[in-house]
Amino acid sequence: MFRIIGEKINGTRKRVAAAIAERDAPFITSLAERQVEAGAHWIDLNAGTSPDREAADLAWLVETVQATVERPLCLDSANPRALEAALALTRQTPMINSITGEPARLEGVLRLVRDSGADVIVLGMGARGMPATAEDRMVVLRELVAATRGEGIADGRLYLDPLIMTVATNTEAAGIALETIRQVRTEFPDAHISCGLSNVSFGLPARGLINRTFLALAVTAGLDTAILDPLDREMQATLIATDLLLGRDRHCLRYTRAYRAGQLEPGAPPKPTV
Amino acid sequence: MFRIIGEKINGTRKRVAAAIAERDAPFITSLAERQVEAGAHWIDLNAGTSPDREAADLAWLVETVQATVERPLCLDSANPRALEAALALTRQTPMINSITGEPARLEGVLRLVRDSGADVIVLGMGARGMPATAEDRMVVLRELVAATRGEGIADGRLYLDPLIMTVATNTEAAGIALETIRQVRTEFPDAHISCGLSNVSFGLPARGLINRTFLALAVTAGLDTAILDPLDREMQATLIATDLLLGRDRHCLRYTRAYRAGQLEPGAPPKPTV
Repeated sequence: MFRIIGEKINGTRKRVAAAIAERDAPFITSLAERQVEAGAHWIDLNAGTSPDREAADLAWLVETVQATVERPLCLDSANPRALEAALALTRQTPMINSITGEPARLEGVLRLVRDSGADVIVLGMGARGMPATAEDRMVVLRELVAATRGEGIADGRLYLDPLIMTVATNTEAAGIALETIRQVRTEFPDAHISCGLSNVSFGLPARGLINRTFLALAVTAGLDTAILDPLDREMQATLIATDLLLGRDRHCLRYTRAYRAGQLEPGAPPKPTV
Repeated sequence: MFRIIGEKINGTRKRVAAAIAERDAPFITSLAERQVEAGAHWIDLNAGTSPDREAADLAWLVETVQATVERPLCLDSANPRALEAALALTRQTPMINSITGEPARLEGVLRLVRDSGADVIVLGMGARGMPATAEDRMVVLRELVAATRGEGIADGRLYLDPLIMTVATNTEAAGIALETIRQVRTEFPDAHISCGLSNVSFGLPARGLINRTFLALAVTAGLDTAILDPLDREMQATLIATDLLLGRDRHCLRYTRAYRAGQLEPGAPPKPTV
């Protein structure tokens, strides 16, 4: 079953930043509730603020969302102090987003993952920056999995991220990501595979078309989790169709139910259930 | 470069059958022209009529379409007499749709393929009916390729068809087709791979969604040709996005041109070229 990390509560978005600054709880709560209704399994929380304010802002987001929504949270920060403050407040097993091979970030956050029992997104990005090829990413991911295993963190808690880059500047970018997904699936069968999907279309028009087409290819390659906008109905329809085509929808039940609920043809009203 | 066989001139469709019966040339011509404008490489011609009328009807279709359209034709018939009459009239290298492993059909049509120099669609269906698995289809396709090679027909003239069945009655159907495509791509690198795409969604609602999602997966697996409706704009948009993601669109030129021409967002007007 494919699972979605709802991406909308992100302080790098202007409107969300304003809501965080003004402690506008109804706005944040509504964003969380709408994502849950649309099927998000986790709610990503990114305070997007400067280091001196991030711990307080992220903690406020955790408390605000948890007040009305019963879903695990994905704590989106590289700042150990902010993560520590947020982790102390979470009521369900959270996810930490993310660790990389950068030594400072790895050391500070890995200990928190170990001690909190959180799941964790592991970016295939090393101390030397963004690896160019699938094999270079695997080298970094192998080092990172060795580190998590060394801390006693089970592979099933890992969400390995192949690093999606835009095809706008490198037309090989999607192919490299797909190849990395296939290799991770083979080499780390117990780990999950997650990505920030919409990066693939950065800088191009009609991004939804590229994103959902890439999603179908990535799910086929082995992706089982993604950070995306769960309110994107065409994306959700593509997920349902992809699961159907991959033999993951017994008797086509989920597909036909989604059709009757009007979820497969955006803009169309629900079909009468004759 | 992916190539489309335009499927619309098919006498099993009621309106087309009437046009054939009434020798309504303007209707047929318009169907051919619209498919060519939409990017069809071949125009499929299926008279859909009884054996005693098929030769005359198919010959009329060939002459009618060739009168205004400069594209190769795909002669869609299992009837050697109808094919022979049509082949005598074609002005560009035609395609014959199709041969199978059924001995009667194979013997009658294979000779025509050899003598005419036509391309040919080869269905992975044997004398014992529809093979259940990818490996069973490969057994049939190997026998058929041995037969075409035996007649001196180069693999580059073959369009091997993995046989797309609907997921409505077997949720493994798409997976079997994709696996067959991957095996054909590996084992017969010089042959083309074609299919009747829309079969995959037969009996289900919102078929376009399933068809275009399957198309992205099939092209990634190695499909390079399909019989489909070139007027389906969302299908065409998916093809353009898939080529982009597979690194087949240098500098994203085709994608950005299609966007500016308004082809990527069905219903939307063309964008101003600032």
